[in-house]
Amino acid sequence: MITSTEQLFTAARTQNGYRPEAVADDTLRQLYELVKWGPTAANSGPARWIFVRSPAAKDKLLGCVSPGNVNKVREAPVTVIVGMDLDFHEQLPKLFPHVDARAWFANDAAKRAESALRNSSLQGGYLILAARALGLDCGPMSGFDPAKMDAAFWAGSSVKTNFICALGHGDPAKVLQRNPRLSFEEACQLA
Amino acid sequence: MITSTEQLFTAARTQNGYRPEAVADDTLRQLYELVKWGPTAANSGPARWIFVRSPAAKDKLLGCVSPGNVNKVREAPVTVIVGMDLDFHEQLPKLFPHVDARAWFANDAAKRAESALRNSSLQGGYLILAARALGLDCGPMSGFDPAKMDAAFWAGSSVKTNFICALGHGDPAKVLQRNPRLSFEEACQLA
Repeated sequence: MITSTEQLFTAARTQNGYRPEAVADDTLRQLYELVKWGPTAANSGPARWIFVRSPAAKDKLLGCVSPGNVNKVREAPVTVIVGMDLDFHEQLPKLFPHVDARAWFANDAAKRAESALRNSSLQGGYLILAARALGLDCGPMSGFDPAKMDAAFWAGSSVKTNFICALGHGDPAKVLQRNPRLSFEEACQLA
Repeated sequence: MITSTEQLFTAARTQNGYRPEAVADDTLRQLYELVKWGPTAANSGPARWIFVRSPAAKDKLLGCVSPGNVNKVREAPVTVIVGMDLDFHEQLPKLFPHVDARAWFANDAAKRAESALRNSSLQGGYLILAARALGLDCGPMSGFDPAKMDAAFWAGSSVKTNFICALGHGDPAKVLQRNPRLSFEEACQLA
């Protein structure tokens, strides 16, 4: 499928409101079928995803987000909860079968937590750009109560919430002025 | 610039060897000019980037990487060190000027460390896909000595190494068999 760097980067904007246009479950499946190919350490792919789009699940989510994010989550047809499996190493015999990568992580919960945050965030970046490639707009958010989120959505599992991201068709009238970025000289070195 | 989901996701492969073809500094600047627009929490953009391509800098880097990554780094025309500024909040008055976002992080080093890892990893995901959009191949790596890396490249600063990523034109003969991924049903829920 054709896309462009304008669609992915330079013309894309974080959304603060959404038009009442549904996102089909098939589109969410298509989204995952792109995101899953993005590289992660030892092919661990620690991200787990809950696509919240039913009224009941949305109500549960609305009870966990910061006041400033309530309207965005309410308007968006889908908000994806990007989770990270802190026991991702249990999948490594399947995902990285040629060596015993499970042993690299099995006795080190701190190493797993760091690797899960790093690699599920990488996957979150893939999700945002894959969604844009599919013509969706994104509104990533970190404003929520992590303990409430984990209890509401990941109880009884080894998954914790990393961040959340609204998906839909943005309302251009609600896009804010674009903030500045660091220049190449401020952020980069050629060594 | 036109690209495709095949180029970014489904046909792209992690590289283990590189053809001896240079990457122009202008391409690295063009890369940053895409990556910088990717969304981060409070527009904090905590990633800092060192593009290692001179023989002296490459030697320094080779002294920090795991044995399994030496040949890849040696062959690649560029390896980018993705760093994260743990004092990114000092840039927030410039990057997120409409509220005092600096205060959200100023007295909480643990919150800064988590946010820096999350958001610089998101930016790392943007980098990998932007590089692919520009026709480059990528080889992201976590196998290095973090303390050595930080001493060699970020001494006297508040930046720490997150991960590294070789950039160049891959040698198709050295690409490994593609590993399996979790199915939609294993990784996702529709709620």
